[in-house]
Amino acid sequence: MKNRIHFNVCERQEKVKEALFSAIESERTTIGYYNLPEQNIDDILNYSNAFSDDIETIVVLGIGGSSLGAKAIYEFIRPIKSPKRKLYFFESTDPLNIMAILAKIELEKTHFLVISKSGTTVETISIFKYLYKKQNSPSNYTFITDEGSGLDAFAKKIGSKVFYLPANVGGRFSVLSVVGLLPLALSGVDIKKLLVGANKVKESFFNDGYLKESLLNKAIFYAKYHTTYNINCLFAYSETLRYFSEWYVQLWGESLGKKQCNSAFNVGVTPIGLIGPKDQHSFLQLIVEGTRDKSVTFIKIEDFQNELTVPDIRLPHLESLDTLNGITFHDLITMQSDSVIEALKMQGDIPLDEIIIKQVNEESIGQLIYYYELLTSLVGQLINVNTYNQPGVESGKIILKDKLQKRYKND
Amino acid sequence: MKNRIHFNVCERQEKVKEALFSAIESERTTIGYYNLPEQNIDDILNYSNAFSDDIETIVVLGIGGSSLGAKAIYEFIRPIKSPKRKLYFFESTDPLNIMAILAKIELEKTHFLVISKSGTTVETISIFKYLYKKQNSPSNYTFITDEGSGLDAFAKKIGSKVFYLPANVGGRFSVLSVVGLLPLALSGVDIKKLLVGANKVKESFFNDGYLKESLLNKAIFYAKYHTTYNINCLFAYSETLRYFSEWYVQLWGESLGKKQCNSAFNVGVTPIGLIGPKDQHSFLQLIVEGTRDKSVTFIKIEDFQNELTVPDIRLPHLESLDTLNGITFHDLITMQSDSVIEALKMQGDIPLDEIIIKQVNEESIGQLIYYYELLTSLVGQLINVNTYNQPGVESGKIILKDKLQKRYKND
Repeated sequence: MKNRIHFNVCERQEKVKEALFSAIESERTTIGYYNLPEQNIDDILNYSNAFSDDIETIVVLGIGGSSLGAKAIYEFIRPIKSPKRKLYFFESTDPLNIMAILAKIELEKTHFLVISKSGTTVETISIFKYLYKKQNSPSNYTFITDEGSGLDAFAKKIGSKVFYLPANVGGRFSVLSVVGLLPLALSGVDIKKLLVGANKVKESFFNDGYLKESLLNKAIFYAKYHTTYNINCLFAYSETLRYFSEWYVQLWGESLGKKQCNSAFNVGVTPIGLIGPKDQHSFLQLIVEGTRDKSVTFIKIEDFQNELTVPDIRLPHLESLDTLNGITFHDLITMQSDSVIEALKMQGDIPLDEIIIKQVNEESIGQLIYYYELLTSLVGQLINVNTYNQPGVESGKIILKDKLQKRYKND
Repeated sequence: MKNRIHFNVCERQEKVKEALFSAIESERTTIGYYNLPEQNIDDILNYSNAFSDDIETIVVLGIGGSSLGAKAIYEFIRPIKSPKRKLYFFESTDPLNIMAILAKIELEKTHFLVISKSGTTVETISIFKYLYKKQNSPSNYTFITDEGSGLDAFAKKIGSKVFYLPANVGGRFSVLSVVGLLPLALSGVDIKKLLVGANKVKESFFNDGYLKESLLNKAIFYAKYHTTYNINCLFAYSETLRYFSEWYVQLWGESLGKKQCNSAFNVGVTPIGLIGPKDQHSFLQLIVEGTRDKSVTFIKIEDFQNELTVPDIRLPHLESLDTLNGITFHDLITMQSDSVIEALKMQGDIPLDEIIIKQVNEESIGQLIYYYELLTSLVGQLINVNTYNQPGVESGKIILKDKLQKRYKND
């Protein structure tokens, strides 16, 4: 992958860079996600390879960090490679949504992955209860949770297989652990190549490679100007990256939207996922002429490996569009992104950069994931927040628990 | 629909309200969307009713304002009512996306709606050329465009049916015109009820009804504090509203992200579409603890008309979640939204409001659409922008045209 930066990086920041890099090197000894690219995945592969071909569908019961990563990668790869098994995700308590997904699956041909770090996620357990009443064979379920959770004890009790989240890997940083790898392996994604991609970015960053400088520069800029550019847009030119952008929104928003460690001031940078060219006809106007509160990162695919072409036909009264004749859609979408980037550069006051990935494949998405995880850690370090917790969501959970208890007693 | 506002509306603003209301009343004589709820739709219904049952699929070739509205309504209604015909949307030049949609449709059983206001939208015409080479029977196409466009002339030349956009209705305000109504009628959506819903909001606003006060108050607050709360989040508690939120993002972002009329200063409020409860596990942390730059509107469904229930089963080691037993998912998701709203109210410094729609049906979504269109017009008026144009996207289009021309000459 390449990264072209079109804004002036902060000069004379060598000391900041050094301090930042060594802070991350030290974090790496305690925060679990950094070393996931080198993990041993034999257990996951063996378990996955032993699955019967009669299982045609994998259903993930999980929400947030338990679903967004696998979904991002599955939906990215699907257009170039028919899945070995279809993946579905129960991620909502919306009854209409639950019924719509139920209508798509055949229970007998389905294996369920119940994923909850804490083991007590309300959405996941309520749907699990519903499904378990219909289908209570322990061999149809696999559980992924923290060792020692109630869900772990339950799974052992009924005799289902349990996998544990690795130590110190938070939900939103868990896609390259068993949380993402198991559903992806079962659906036929090459998880080895995924880790190869992630490892390339890791090596490049930690061993003075190409991305070290670019990641440090970007992070310093974003942090230094986080109150000016309080919105970060990811503008990806391919529909395949639609769910990647949802994953990025959780990673970025939940990691960086925090009270600062020393001051308890509210800080954060708001993530926005955009898809081109569609959002040229939606959000672009706001970027070009709206308030200067946004930085924008474009993601482009260097080679779609696809020859679909606009045919060479003239349509009466539409001759002005003959310039489209004979162009591949790959070239067209690339010209579209390049035109928008040029137009934004002309504005002169919008911080832009481009990430170019080679192809739609496992290695590329592995790179993107690790790149954004690193960038998040770097910015979090500089704006002085705890990147890895999410205390803000607790109060809502407590209120809900209380409401549920009152209802239960009154019933 | 109801609207509960949880922030202090600006007091002593009677004169501002009067001026604002009369500005909108005067806009109503020139801007076309205001009067769409009362339009005569006989032509659309007659044309749609005459369609053969052999046509099982409707494919929209359109992007931005030509697709987002119909998609929002179609996807909202689909879970409660199987579509008469499936709707697909070609909205991207991504070749992998085009191929994925092509794989789903049977050309012989498909009717194509080619929708482009200008008639020269690059994405739409490039895909149209591709499809027209495969299937060139004029009776399989219907065109919707501005009268007198090149596409209009082309459609007449080949003898296809053409509908025109009503005068002074911009793309992003066109969902309640033939642009949205035709694909929706063909898919079995009750478009009369859609307009009934929209008309209720219209009447309520223009005839001193319940929504007049609440819309004026909200607009004044958003406009007055648009530099403080430069982000507006729509947090909808139902997966059915997922594409509604994409429609809202275009409407809000493209209408309000502008240079101010007098000063040419860059202004705007950034729209963000969120879906609950999923985004409790993603974006909520940023709202609770992040920078105070966001206002949040919750959308709730009063009655899902669905009895799906968490079964009354005890799971060993998960007894703490017995409080979920016997609850309908409808009640659960409502408790979840209420808990989050309570938690955010406790913060005390986040402007919140709630919109409650009755049920998942045509009338409700018609109300929501007209409500948001009005709110957009009101805020645009106050922050002194031209709500109805989009000059910022032109420069990218010119650069693209130039690139395409160069390529064409060199070929």
